[in-house]
Amino acid sequence: MNVFVIGIGLIGGSFAIDIKAAFNEAEIYGVDVNEDNLDKALSLGIIKYKSSFDALDKADVVIIAIPVDVTLEILPIILDKIDDNCLVFDVGSTKKKICDRVDGHDKRRNYLAAHPIAGTEFSGPQAAIANLYRGKTNIICEVEKTAFKLQERGMEIFSRLGMRIRYMDPSSHDKHIAYVSHLSHISSFMLGKTVIEKEKNERDIFDMAGSGFASTVRLAKSSPAMWAPIFKHNKENVLETLEEYIANLVRFKELIDSDDFLEIYKEMDGANYIKTILKGIN
Amino acid sequence: MNVFVIGIGLIGGSFAIDIKAAFNEAEIYGVDVNEDNLDKALSLGIIKYKSSFDALDKADVVIIAIPVDVTLEILPIILDKIDDNCLVFDVGSTKKKICDRVDGHDKRRNYLAAHPIAGTEFSGPQAAIANLYRGKTNIICEVEKTAFKLQERGMEIFSRLGMRIRYMDPSSHDKHIAYVSHLSHISSFMLGKTVIEKEKNERDIFDMAGSGFASTVRLAKSSPAMWAPIFKHNKENVLETLEEYIANLVRFKELIDSDDFLEIYKEMDGANYIKTILKGIN
Repeated sequence: MNVFVIGIGLIGGSFAIDIKAAFNEAEIYGVDVNEDNLDKALSLGIIKYKSSFDALDKADVVIIAIPVDVTLEILPIILDKIDDNCLVFDVGSTKKKICDRVDGHDKRRNYLAAHPIAGTEFSGPQAAIANLYRGKTNIICEVEKTAFKLQERGMEIFSRLGMRIRYMDPSSHDKHIAYVSHLSHISSFMLGKTVIEKEKNERDIFDMAGSGFASTVRLAKSSPAMWAPIFKHNKENVLETLEEYIANLVRFKELIDSDDFLEIYKEMDGANYIKTILKGIN
Repeated sequence: MNVFVIGIGLIGGSFAIDIKAAFNEAEIYGVDVNEDNLDKALSLGIIKYKSSFDALDKADVVIIAIPVDVTLEILPIILDKIDDNCLVFDVGSTKKKICDRVDGHDKRRNYLAAHPIAGTEFSGPQAAIANLYRGKTNIICEVEKTAFKLQERGMEIFSRLGMRIRYMDPSSHDKHIAYVSHLSHISSFMLGKTVIEKEKNERDIFDMAGSGFASTVRLAKSSPAMWAPIFKHNKENVLETLEEYIANLVRFKELIDSDDFLEIYKEMDGANYIKTILKGIN
């Protein structure tokens, strides 16, 4: 089984490691615009061969793990190049624009739209790790548009990697993921910015920061190259979540300003419900 | 050494566990308005005796680990009751109001104003753990106002528990802690609220939430009873941080709205500097 990984960073590299471990017969080919990343992936043993788009005709599986705006441009080109029996899946954090782009493509049935909810705040092939996907949710969109035999191949991969599957339409995916992922990233990036701006001349101050701060600001380490295109793709949904988040913060600020600490207590008590929700998230 | 812990929850209970382990001769007395907590602490072996304010005259050390508004009220009363050779320290997340309250008190020199930057999002005696304070920063305010021999006793405790000490004036403490701790809690509480409001009828959606969401919203599990008084005590500083945070979010929203994704990239790239800052925070 020839597996081509387009974009051999944290996400693509972690797929490469696990697929190689789970499928004896898998040969991993890496394709990346960044030659350094390819060399690193090769020397780390994540890929067996450096490769290119020209060799895609011999792929059995193609995994696209690059910024969503680039996926949008090259997915149709990749579909043009592959064999009729090849499965192509992407792992992007937005699904609507990408599904729309290949709707009606001759090889639409070779494509499976996926979004594994897994990652860390690090990036690049050196950040790739084994078992990143074990126990994680993989959201599959428009499954009925993928050829049955290729669905099976995809599910065999996801199953051996330990993922659980949820099916969803692309619009619902993009709407909900804005709340449970995209908004978290913005809140974290802007928290980091606010503190850095204020404390830039106060180096010692970060001695005062504890694990709580580290936790809330962790996602501010994420790759801007990945995240700017996500916000672009999911603009309307992200704007809506941001508007609501800002309105809640403004209200909280007004409550402090007017010394309504009973109401502040209630706001926090309500948010404590997140305990129930978080059970079951690693 | 008789150690009285006022408020036998996560913070007080964790002090009790570590002090008992580090000082053979330590006898731990628990005082709490919540009788259930006292019983739990006793059965968990965190305290040796249930006790009360009336027994404070036999204390060598008193640790106050309760909401800051209650500390403000009872610290002078505790100082009135203790022996001349007793050390009292609090662990509250605000320091200015508390220091001001006992300024000029007859027993001011028995009091050490402390803020250990340690904790988890859980609460109650069952949340108390060993080694919570190891490697953590303990901020001490107005150290010069504490009797030298009692400073020494405090430092011996903090040292055996593995804490590193930073000295700071109460106003600076409250100003900076608003950025690196209080704001994080508000951003997390309001993130939790925003998502809960939106998704309350969509139970399945939380299958979509990953470790990134869990990390940013973790502090929303914190105790409202602890946090409402902190925001009350540190009102002016917290309002200032919130204003800046909201302004940054509004700007980010406007950048998305106007499709300025280059500038969005730059904003996130700047916030990536948090990587450097976070090195060294557990």
